[in-house]
Amino acid sequence: MTDIVDIFKTIIEPNRIKVGDKIPIKYLGKNKSLSRAECLLRPVNSEEVSSILKVCNDNKRIVVAQGGMSGLVGGGDTNSGDIIVSLELLNTIYEIDPVDRVLIAGAGVILQHAQEKVDEIDCMLPVDLGARGSATLGGLISTNAGGNRVIRYGMTRYSVLGLEAVTANGEIISSMNRMIKNNAGYDLKQLFIGSEGSLGIITKCVIKLYPKPNSFSTAFVGIDNFDSLKEFLTYTDKELSGGLGAFEVMWSDYYDCVKSNYPSMQMPLTSKYKYYVLIEMLGSDPIKDQEKFTDALGFALNNKLIEDVVIAKSDTDRKKLWAIREDVYEVFKKLSPIFTYDVSMPIKDMEFFADETKKKMGSMFKDSTTLIFGHLGDGNLHLVVSVGDDHDESHRKVNNIIYGIISDLGGSISAEHGIGTEKKDYLKMTRNKQEIDLMKTLKRSLDPNSILNPGKIFD
Amino acid sequence: MTDIVDIFKTIIEPNRIKVGDKIPIKYLGKNKSLSRAECLLRPVNSEEVSSILKVCNDNKRIVVAQGGMSGLVGGGDTNSGDIIVSLELLNTIYEIDPVDRVLIAGAGVILQHAQEKVDEIDCMLPVDLGARGSATLGGLISTNAGGNRVIRYGMTRYSVLGLEAVTANGEIISSMNRMIKNNAGYDLKQLFIGSEGSLGIITKCVIKLYPKPNSFSTAFVGIDNFDSLKEFLTYTDKELSGGLGAFEVMWSDYYDCVKSNYPSMQMPLTSKYKYYVLIEMLGSDPIKDQEKFTDALGFALNNKLIEDVVIAKSDTDRKKLWAIREDVYEVFKKLSPIFTYDVSMPIKDMEFFADETKKKMGSMFKDSTTLIFGHLGDGNLHLVVSVGDDHDESHRKVNNIIYGIISDLGGSISAEHGIGTEKKDYLKMTRNKQEIDLMKTLKRSLDPNSILNPGKIFD
Repeated sequence: MTDIVDIFKTIIEPNRIKVGDKIPIKYLGKNKSLSRAECLLRPVNSEEVSSILKVCNDNKRIVVAQGGMSGLVGGGDTNSGDIIVSLELLNTIYEIDPVDRVLIAGAGVILQHAQEKVDEIDCMLPVDLGARGSATLGGLISTNAGGNRVIRYGMTRYSVLGLEAVTANGEIISSMNRMIKNNAGYDLKQLFIGSEGSLGIITKCVIKLYPKPNSFSTAFVGIDNFDSLKEFLTYTDKELSGGLGAFEVMWSDYYDCVKSNYPSMQMPLTSKYKYYVLIEMLGSDPIKDQEKFTDALGFALNNKLIEDVVIAKSDTDRKKLWAIREDVYEVFKKLSPIFTYDVSMPIKDMEFFADETKKKMGSMFKDSTTLIFGHLGDGNLHLVVSVGDDHDESHRKVNNIIYGIISDLGGSISAEHGIGTEKKDYLKMTRNKQEIDLMKTLKRSLDPNSILNPGKIFD
Repeated sequence: MTDIVDIFKTIIEPNRIKVGDKIPIKYLGKNKSLSRAECLLRPVNSEEVSSILKVCNDNKRIVVAQGGMSGLVGGGDTNSGDIIVSLELLNTIYEIDPVDRVLIAGAGVILQHAQEKVDEIDCMLPVDLGARGSATLGGLISTNAGGNRVIRYGMTRYSVLGLEAVTANGEIISSMNRMIKNNAGYDLKQLFIGSEGSLGIITKCVIKLYPKPNSFSTAFVGIDNFDSLKEFLTYTDKELSGGLGAFEVMWSDYYDCVKSNYPSMQMPLTSKYKYYVLIEMLGSDPIKDQEKFTDALGFALNNKLIEDVVIAKSDTDRKKLWAIREDVYEVFKKLSPIFTYDVSMPIKDMEFFADETKKKMGSMFKDSTTLIFGHLGDGNLHLVVSVGDDHDESHRKVNNIIYGIISDLGGSISAEHGIGTEKKDYLKMTRNKQEIDLMKTLKRSLDPNSILNPGKIFD
């Protein structure tokens, strides 16, 4: 019997194959201590991916596609016997077009690299997130990544004009549309966006670009009740007419926790409020836009929508304000062990959600901390929960509290991170039986031998 | 043997069933002279649609779902023996939420009715098009409609947060997500958006709303070369920073044809230019936005991007400018018989496309007129072609000229109207074999008996 690795050696250069113990640890995901995948393959083009998948499909071998391994739900995790296909060498930028505003690139291109190239022609890649230095375009598309600019530009799905993907049987589906409008038949790319590598492996993409903003106006706001918070969002979204670029909210526990655990962090507001908002406007004219932004905040202050506001006067100021929302790794480390959540729900239900979560956590655990913050304008909250240990049983208890409330509210247990292995057991709390059955119908139809990332999303 | 109509009478009230000759002509689509469908059913909810589909699937009977019958490619056409399911009675608006900015409504709600209701809470429904008085939300979603505001808000697909659809076997897939972010498993709604009723029948939807603009700044511009036209688009898109709401271009033949055939139309520019642009900005402040708009156009004029410009000073002015682009039915009638086209392509290739089309039309036909105009900012052009007759052979010849050039450019034969029956024969000129095979795999998987609108899009 021929070893499958020997077959792979006829497809790609042997130096792009690593077997068993030779597979570097970064490719093994969160299961790294448990078991080694069979081998790691690093193809350089769609044709090689196609040949690999044909072999794996014929031999019914499990394939785990990997990008930058920056996912948060174990979507790239591997088990003993798995074949890892890393797309990292499909890292060519084929074209950047400043008129049609498209980027055409391989799936393995690192987000930050693409952002920098796009910046050179005075455009902006709409997707941005903390893991920009390692996340790949293919990974971002496979997980339909969210990030910092969703309120303005939408999820990754909305910026993908076309893509090329290889299905389980090795067929290369080249659907490299580059137009905003194309209603000629089914929009097949949607199958591969956000399906976490379970319906096909994305090898290339066409991304829609936007004009690069010339101005960023940023402020930090204190608000004392949720009705005002909602009204402030509605007001600024309308008043800044398409310019609102971020509306990040922090509940007071979060703000206080940063303040007390991170003495070097400069906190802009000294009085205590129930909610803190980091609001940002993207525009084209630094002077006039700042004026418009200041006027809108002044109106909000005079009309008691907000209690207090600090407006950034420089890029340094702006970075300091963002640090309170983003550079808090040290704070979370002090709270660790922690459980983290990424949920979405109607904005109007968020006050109830937060209160109910804290109430139930209080009854379940003697001593717990729950920090709530997130992209409120997108209906997306993140939670950091600490109960003193990270036992599976504690994790399950907290999951059941949070996902139980989310389920009752018609929210989602995953706003932007996906399901992977981490949230698989809870999928049925957020999607109904008919939906999950239809997902399985699609999976069977495109991947009858279930070789592509099985055991992720659903069993 | 029980007549199938008798079974339907046990599902829905008999007064909502019309049989054979009793079916009003408006439900028969473009084939009305040829043959009558078997019957027309008008269910009032998803459960009735489900029961109807179960019966049709068991009896392998063809079902044609219909909305407002305003489609342009014969997607709702019927043949002898077909069962028509009109969704027009699913016309309930369930909820309009001004904070989360969502509209939840039945598939049969007329667009204009929904727009008016949404307007009452100071929001805007992002989809708008000429057929607003008859088109239904379900129809707009099934065809992924484009329209007047795509450059700002995207195609209909981008405004659909959730939907409910009934698949061929009668399963009700309720995927009524109302959040901007939901990455919990496959995004199933994408299957039903733009698939022209061939994978399921949409019964309900959740539409994302936007703040209602307070200001519309509109101008009519003359430009003499295509490079300047492209530069003007790039410049205004950046300068108006998210405010650009329309960038409609008319080639000079179009403008001249309107001028000479429509004496009562007020033409804003008297000198002759190669291209005319209707540009519009949507904003929140009538005075400051008009100032910003005027400044941007002044800059463009001073820097020779544009040759001439007329800015609307009132809503009456604005309507007069839009009339040149929209109220030209009379002009087209004078040219008739005409063939019409709706194509997309990279913007940078449009000059070549226009020149090549006119050249080939000139060699093929002794006397022909080709008017080119459209949503240039979206990469979408419309063509009105007159060759003196409307014989099938002439139609085929013109199709082959236009779709041949489009195919070479990697464009699409349908930007916003869909494929239906009208463009089915040309699908392979714009989508490759692997794509069409995958469409068929999906169709077989969701509708194994091929009862849902078969013979549309592909055979």
